[in-house]
Amino acid sequence: MHHTEVADLDFESWVCPVPLRDTPSVVMGHGGGGAMSGELVEHLFLPAFGTAAAAELGDSAVLSIGTGAATDGVAGAGTRLAFSTDSFVVKPMFFPGGSIGDLAVNGTVNDLAMSGATPLFLSTAFILQEGTGLAELGRIAQAMGTAAQTAGVRLVTGDTKVVDSASGDGVYINTSGIGVIPDGVDIHPRRARPGDAVLVSGDIGVHGVAVMSCREGLEFGTAVESDTAALHGLVAAMLATGADLHVLRDPTRGGVSASLNEIARASDVGVELVERDLPVPQNVRDACSLLGLDPLQVANEGKLIAFVPPESADEVLAALRAHPLGRSAARIGTCVADHPGMVVARTAIGGTRVVGLPIGEQLPRIC
Amino acid sequence: MHHTEVADLDFESWVCPVPLRDTPSVVMGHGGGGAMSGELVEHLFLPAFGTAAAAELGDSAVLSIGTGAATDGVAGAGTRLAFSTDSFVVKPMFFPGGSIGDLAVNGTVNDLAMSGATPLFLSTAFILQEGTGLAELGRIAQAMGTAAQTAGVRLVTGDTKVVDSASGDGVYINTSGIGVIPDGVDIHPRRARPGDAVLVSGDIGVHGVAVMSCREGLEFGTAVESDTAALHGLVAAMLATGADLHVLRDPTRGGVSASLNEIARASDVGVELVERDLPVPQNVRDACSLLGLDPLQVANEGKLIAFVPPESADEVLAALRAHPLGRSAARIGTCVADHPGMVVARTAIGGTRVVGLPIGEQLPRIC
Repeated sequence: MHHTEVADLDFESWVCPVPLRDTPSVVMGHGGGGAMSGELVEHLFLPAFGTAAAAELGDSAVLSIGTGAATDGVAGAGTRLAFSTDSFVVKPMFFPGGSIGDLAVNGTVNDLAMSGATPLFLSTAFILQEGTGLAELGRIAQAMGTAAQTAGVRLVTGDTKVVDSASGDGVYINTSGIGVIPDGVDIHPRRARPGDAVLVSGDIGVHGVAVMSCREGLEFGTAVESDTAALHGLVAAMLATGADLHVLRDPTRGGVSASLNEIARASDVGVELVERDLPVPQNVRDACSLLGLDPLQVANEGKLIAFVPPESADEVLAALRAHPLGRSAARIGTCVADHPGMVVARTAIGGTRVVGLPIGEQLPRIC
Repeated sequence: MHHTEVADLDFESWVCPVPLRDTPSVVMGHGGGGAMSGELVEHLFLPAFGTAAAAELGDSAVLSIGTGAATDGVAGAGTRLAFSTDSFVVKPMFFPGGSIGDLAVNGTVNDLAMSGATPLFLSTAFILQEGTGLAELGRIAQAMGTAAQTAGVRLVTGDTKVVDSASGDGVYINTSGIGVIPDGVDIHPRRARPGDAVLVSGDIGVHGVAVMSCREGLEFGTAVESDTAALHGLVAAMLATGADLHVLRDPTRGGVSASLNEIARASDVGVELVERDLPVPQNVRDACSLLGLDPLQVANEGKLIAFVPPESADEVLAALRAHPLGRSAARIGTCVADHPGMVVARTAIGGTRVVGLPIGEQLPRIC
């Protein structure tokens, strides 16, 4: 792990990465889900879209539909829908534990689930490179069908484009999804509150390491399989406790670190992690050491982070652990009023380190 | 125009293109919106998706949401939503009359409008090639913002991925959209009935020729500008007549020919066009002659085809012509009970020709 360890961290002198780095063109880091991705949205897409854009343009939007005018971002009288989109460009397309097809379904299902929605419908749009084997495409489509069936969502509309062999790389998939948010559920990155317990549903860093393990000849001692999974069942189990869940997030690109930093900024709160409580499997730890990666920044595709009121923490943690997808769930930290917008970790030796928002991309094309 | 002209066409001996051509890999034609695109959906995606897929997997899905269980394809008690997705890979990204940004917004708005929906919300997902200029990306995003504002839709959620310079080609954009279908509106490719008048909202073949004109050094005598436009206002004007619109379709990839063939098959009816009534501008006609293209197979991005009951034809045509986007609207043919699934054209010299579903791709990467 690359970090400065300091016993008494000077929060005042810590500076957020400068907005919009001085590059004239798109670099890999703009797709990494870290600071550069955020800058592209904030300093290019939002100003360019102008008044047509919703103020947030986040991973998933909450829309009110029915009984009068439709609005976005406002809980109205009608049905509340969650709407989300994600493109998948993972390389290789097949990796231990899954394929781009699994990711394409589970990824969008999870974006919907993180607003507490019941995912219902997905669109599927393919950009195919000329020359891609139809058998390969068939396997990917089959993985999508199986994942959709497992998740209980319907694939209802689609599109296929083909680009010449010099302009693509196998199969790119976009899925967009619609879900319905149950009455009374209000889960949002802005709702983290000091005192909230920070939970994670299981081992972190698994997906990123699984993809890296089969890329460019890298092999590790033990096999690591992607954790790709649909998480809305797990969310339903958490909601069934009756707890007022404040924030849910699936820590994909940029890992736990990116998700916690985004939540800290959106809610204007601090987050304090306890490093020794992070569930990092030994094989992920080993692989990260070898590759010089921080497990906190490595992508997950079947895990969630939850901010829950302190009085509900034990009950929600128990509900997570009772579910097959949450057996290794753990409390990893606390939401604090100090150092708003910043995530810090108490290290094993008693120090404190800043857990920064990743700047660019540790692992390109991981999802 | 390439076709066999016969005075007395033998419909019995005409054979539909064989399903799933014998190719082991993806070819450009699979993305052309013609027969090969259809085969890929029917013989690969639908079987592979299995029970998770809606039976049709069309350009746009109708979903019922609210008051009980959500369903697809069935008009229920709740709100009826239209849901659609489209990826855009047009090359070049800027062309006379518009850019990939305009297409990305208008294309999905139009897919929604063709089910009679009022388009409300779009997602925007980018796959960017490393090295693409940020200024260029900014211009594209600005075009999207302007088009969305003009169309009155909100850009509510997004995603950005970056692929290395060998694996992309500038900017690929997926937009997915949600609209609400007004009560009483039931517009669907299966609703064409013998006797229906077939209308087109204006000049055909314009977009395809505009893109070709600036590609690979081709230049024609007169400038042709893309017709890219959002058509839901035009649809609203048609609905305001009170006519029971049966089918609407925007003839994009594969042109008027592909759209009419799809409708003929979906409704199990025949279509008879009158060739001299087709509004083909002289510059499009000239360009098509030069390139060996059939204007009926060239893409449009701001036109619609309508099947309307004969008694409403004049009124709907008048409503089209009274709208700025429908000034050159024309009745181009009639829906017939003969030769179901087939489109024929009465030629200028009194013969008849089959207007086939394009097999593959006349003009690759046109949208």
